[in-house]
Amino acid sequence: MESSGGHPEAMVPPIEGVAGGGTAYGWGESGIQDPNLLRTSIDPLKVHSSELVHAWCMPSTANVGSQDMPRTLEPISLLAARNERENFQIAIRPKVSWAGSTVAGTVQMQCTDLCSTSGDRLLVGESLKVRRVVPILGVPDALVPLEVPVSQLTLLPGETTAVYVSIDVPEIQPPGQYEGEFIITATRADTQYTVQSPNKAERNHMYQELLTCLDFLEPIDGKPLDEVAERVKCASSSLRKVLEMPSFSDLYLDNGSGDMMEEDAISNFSIRVKLSLTVWDFVLPVTPSLPAVIGISDTVIEDRFGVEHGSSQWYEALDEHFQWLLQYKISPYFCRWREGMRVLTYTCPWPADHPKSDEYLSNPRLAAYAVPDSPVVSCGDTATNFLQREVELLRTKNHWRKAYFYLWDEPLNLEHYEAIRNMASEIQAYAPDARIMTTYYCGPSDAPLASNNFESFLKVPEFLRPHNQIYCTSEWVIGNREDLAKDIIAEIQPENGEEWWTYVCMGPADPHPNWHLGMRGTQHRAVMWRVWKEGGTGFLYWGANCYEKASVPSAEIKFRRGLPPGDGVLYYPGQVFSSSAEPVASLRLERLLSGLQDIEYLKLYSSRFGREEGLQLLEKTGMYLGPERYTNEHMPIDVMRGEVFRTCRSDSNF
Amino acid sequence: MESSGGHPEAMVPPIEGVAGGGTAYGWGESGIQDPNLLRTSIDPLKVHSSELVHAWCMPSTANVGSQDMPRTLEPISLLAARNERENFQIAIRPKVSWAGSTVAGTVQMQCTDLCSTSGDRLLVGESLKVRRVVPILGVPDALVPLEVPVSQLTLLPGETTAVYVSIDVPEIQPPGQYEGEFIITATRADTQYTVQSPNKAERNHMYQELLTCLDFLEPIDGKPLDEVAERVKCASSSLRKVLEMPSFSDLYLDNGSGDMMEEDAISNFSIRVKLSLTVWDFVLPVTPSLPAVIGISDTVIEDRFGVEHGSSQWYEALDEHFQWLLQYKISPYFCRWREGMRVLTYTCPWPADHPKSDEYLSNPRLAAYAVPDSPVVSCGDTATNFLQREVELLRTKNHWRKAYFYLWDEPLNLEHYEAIRNMASEIQAYAPDARIMTTYYCGPSDAPLASNNFESFLKVPEFLRPHNQIYCTSEWVIGNREDLAKDIIAEIQPENGEEWWTYVCMGPADPHPNWHLGMRGTQHRAVMWRVWKEGGTGFLYWGANCYEKASVPSAEIKFRRGLPPGDGVLYYPGQVFSSSAEPVASLRLERLLSGLQDIEYLKLYSSRFGREEGLQLLEKTGMYLGPERYTNEHMPIDVMRGEVFRTCRSDSNF
Repeated sequence: MESSGGHPEAMVPPIEGVAGGGTAYGWGESGIQDPNLLRTSIDPLKVHSSELVHAWCMPSTANVGSQDMPRTLEPISLLAARNERENFQIAIRPKVSWAGSTVAGTVQMQCTDLCSTSGDRLLVGESLKVRRVVPILGVPDALVPLEVPVSQLTLLPGETTAVYVSIDVPEIQPPGQYEGEFIITATRADTQYTVQSPNKAERNHMYQELLTCLDFLEPIDGKPLDEVAERVKCASSSLRKVLEMPSFSDLYLDNGSGDMMEEDAISNFSIRVKLSLTVWDFVLPVTPSLPAVIGISDTVIEDRFGVEHGSSQWYEALDEHFQWLLQYKISPYFCRWREGMRVLTYTCPWPADHPKSDEYLSNPRLAAYAVPDSPVVSCGDTATNFLQREVELLRTKNHWRKAYFYLWDEPLNLEHYEAIRNMASEIQAYAPDARIMTTYYCGPSDAPLASNNFESFLKVPEFLRPHNQIYCTSEWVIGNREDLAKDIIAEIQPENGEEWWTYVCMGPADPHPNWHLGMRGTQHRAVMWRVWKEGGTGFLYWGANCYEKASVPSAEIKFRRGLPPGDGVLYYPGQVFSSSAEPVASLRLERLLSGLQDIEYLKLYSSRFGREEGLQLLEKTGMYLGPERYTNEHMPIDVMRGEVFRTCRSDSNF
Repeated sequence: MESSGGHPEAMVPPIEGVAGGGTAYGWGESGIQDPNLLRTSIDPLKVHSSELVHAWCMPSTANVGSQDMPRTLEPISLLAARNERENFQIAIRPKVSWAGSTVAGTVQMQCTDLCSTSGDRLLVGESLKVRRVVPILGVPDALVPLEVPVSQLTLLPGETTAVYVSIDVPEIQPPGQYEGEFIITATRADTQYTVQSPNKAERNHMYQELLTCLDFLEPIDGKPLDEVAERVKCASSSLRKVLEMPSFSDLYLDNGSGDMMEEDAISNFSIRVKLSLTVWDFVLPVTPSLPAVIGISDTVIEDRFGVEHGSSQWYEALDEHFQWLLQYKISPYFCRWREGMRVLTYTCPWPADHPKSDEYLSNPRLAAYAVPDSPVVSCGDTATNFLQREVELLRTKNHWRKAYFYLWDEPLNLEHYEAIRNMASEIQAYAPDARIMTTYYCGPSDAPLASNNFESFLKVPEFLRPHNQIYCTSEWVIGNREDLAKDIIAEIQPENGEEWWTYVCMGPADPHPNWHLGMRGTQHRAVMWRVWKEGGTGFLYWGANCYEKASVPSAEIKFRRGLPPGDGVLYYPGQVFSSSAEPVASLRLERLLSGLQDIEYLKLYSSRFGREEGLQLLEKTGMYLGPERYTNEHMPIDVMRGEVFRTCRSDSNF
């Protein structure tokens, strides 16, 4: 046939009956048992919630999108060490619409404490938290806190909603088997959920009616009894009218006892998601084994929250961010860009002689901290004086071993590299043991250190020595050539206190591990697997709050032009999503934490059986073989963790 | 560099300052004038709405997704004939969140009548309608009616919401320039929009308080005055408490006069979208020039709405669908599949001797109707008797010229073709002038009519003659070889009443015009441009409601397995989106209508200047050059329509 060029399927008949729609009809299983109950107006209190919604569980590494299709609901079984956070997701999708409004319906989700057979508990609200997964640029990412133990979720027609469940196991939690459940119940369309209902008119009506009622009652002083009686009668009648208004219909149907109704509904018609959690006797170290230092832009905080640099509100705002981020087992540093690519970085906004300094820097959850090389807040002192005083004070402290100076972001030429050497020598004049960290992905371009780019990059330690201790290189340089990590390590002198750290930012791009929006969940989590496998001893990420400038806390989040979406943004201002000012984590930040926790598992295993066995474990579970060969599925992660549990748990305990 | 293989950008430095996040910061223009007003809790009644939301206009052919970025707001200018529907869209995206809940905020949209200088009006609610664009599988498609003149829209953080505005110009509307506006005002978070607020608790509290109040008032009969006075005092105090509850806060702030507040807000702080509409003196024919016959599955209606075949509810349900679809200038036929690919098709569910039959079939909005060849509802008669009676009665009617018989969907082999010939000869024995229509995309595969597939396909008319009059072929056969249409037409004998119609279904696929979900708006509209350019005289589409089986009206819409999304589904049950049973149109159905209206413009132009000039107009505007060469932009459509207006309007009138 002449026209077949454009048609790979040329003249192949369509599947019989499909093109015409005939026999293809009716294969779908709606899962609805009794359509008669649902034919007209649906009362969710009279049917089992499983008739109205699909609910199913997903692992934490799944990106559950609005178009994700239902799966079978199965009980969830998790493993967690002490001082570990473990997560999973519950997805819900309406089968029908029952709200009679533009939403499909509302479900209530209730969660219970997790209880062990010996009576120990993981408490809802403390250990157990639930957050709604909200899309950013259409991709599931923001985790907006839901109330516990009971929260309401609005479901939209044809859209899957996901809830992210996190369990933080306290360090002192007794090991054992903990059980709990999540109870999902379709609810009546409460007035507050019926978008576009003419509710204001009704409230207005109610308000006027109550005012009328009050008018009857107020001026009775000195009135004769019969007039008072008449007025009271009118008032009563007004009141009755108000009480019969639709706003209260759900209340008077159950005699105003809302709680009883909910109890009732739960016992008979709810979907129950069973959760079983094994807490084992491994305690994740309070101080993370691998320092993951993450930049927080103070400028972004100043602009968005309207706090003036150095004001008391500014210190408060920075403190809130710092404290909140510590739960992610990262070591935050605040950062502002200066001329060129010089950076002013500092973990503690207060100077070393301020009481807050010790409080911050001796915090055991901090694995490393940045020391500023000039005053963060102008103090009427010269930069040199400031530096000398800071350094001389800090180096007397026990926490000094965690200190580093991060002075320049990605030097490119001789001038940059010279500047770093000069700044470093000034610092090291006051403290010879001060550690300087430099991020880079190439040697000086105008005076190559070797005959090709990669060799020149490799020679940076030789070139910077002794002015630099932490060589922090881009994973992008390694690409898919994992073996190059060995060449880099060969240039490092750990015996002289040198370390090799890595970082990701714009690069590496897909399919390599990174934290860009739109990458797979295991790809986010694999950033840390990669670090552990390649043998780096620390990790840097340039920005966790580096979205575009805005001057209003609740302003829409925009990613910076020229950056891949999500790059430099690991959490969001709470005000964008609710009235709460508490920051909102991204799924990617949770996966960073999970990855750091995976490192503790791998480290434990390697401490027992050697690093080679640890690498073997990564490989044989299929979890991570290289930057382009890691699991898309969650299962291998659980297999790895299960294997560490099986082989490393103490026999005496649990 | 050795590792550069995987990096096309190897060792090219990132844009300066971008990788580090330095100089890239702050380019964004939030458009917010006075951040201080928005710093903490935002009262939308105190700031201009343009500080809180972006609003801008888009043409009807745009697919406005949730991630569409704001554009400049410009006044809208439209052209419409009489008896035409013209559309545009208003997109709204929050700049900030002000609701303090999981929604960003609520805006009110008010629309005015369109008024001409001579005092003529196009009335809101009658001529002017607004619908919210709701995504289906993530793609903007369903058009859910909003209330007029005032409706509320809930905006989500980081998501663009679109409103589809339609203006139906009545046939008798005086031509002229009509002006109107859309007034968008950010509103306070009304309790009914604050998802997840503890509103039920408050309502419960209110309810209990009112019951208490009533308890004070009810048993006063025979009580002494001082006790009554005491009771009234308590009741008053209860009432005051209720009136001070947060639910009424917005009401008592403006003294209970909600309307005044809204007026106020509108005059000072609203975004105004100006609309100017030119109505011209062309009247689109009541009976569409091109019959577009569209199948409606009666089985789907029976299953989903629970109406028993042949019951009075069944007739009602079919009638509702029929009447609603007529507004789209299509000619619906109901359809059920029988054994093999035989189909029972009928435009009127009642037999020819029923009064409804004439009402249906003589409806001037119907361009063609299907006659069933056996009883639709069992009537105790044989198929043959039924057929004879129907045909003998119908052929006496004036509307008989619109009748056709559609007996078989896509015959593939000799047996199928023979069956059609036999069925046709029986019908034509009773009515020699009966028109048989057959859909096909190939000749009989087991007895090819020519040496290759396409030639065999071409010879079908010769093979079926005289038993078939309407040769309805798949556009998929033509592919991108528009010239093949000439070969097909050459085989048709219009002098003997033969016609060439076309259809689309699974194929043709992208980039060719079709109505699949996810195709561009102009691609949807171009289905009809293609028909007109190729010279077909009718069009068939197999299904408008052929989603998957469900037994509950509000059940989730699922597309049939094996079909491209949207294929066979042009509208949705209203119950999926709200409590209304009125069907919900898809954007694609609106574009079908727009395409049919474009044909009327092209036909008018050709009637004045000849078909060649009409084809030239399509080409020179860049609107449609071929199945792979048509505009992605809306502008050429307006240019074509404007040119027809300019050249064809009567000088005397407007």
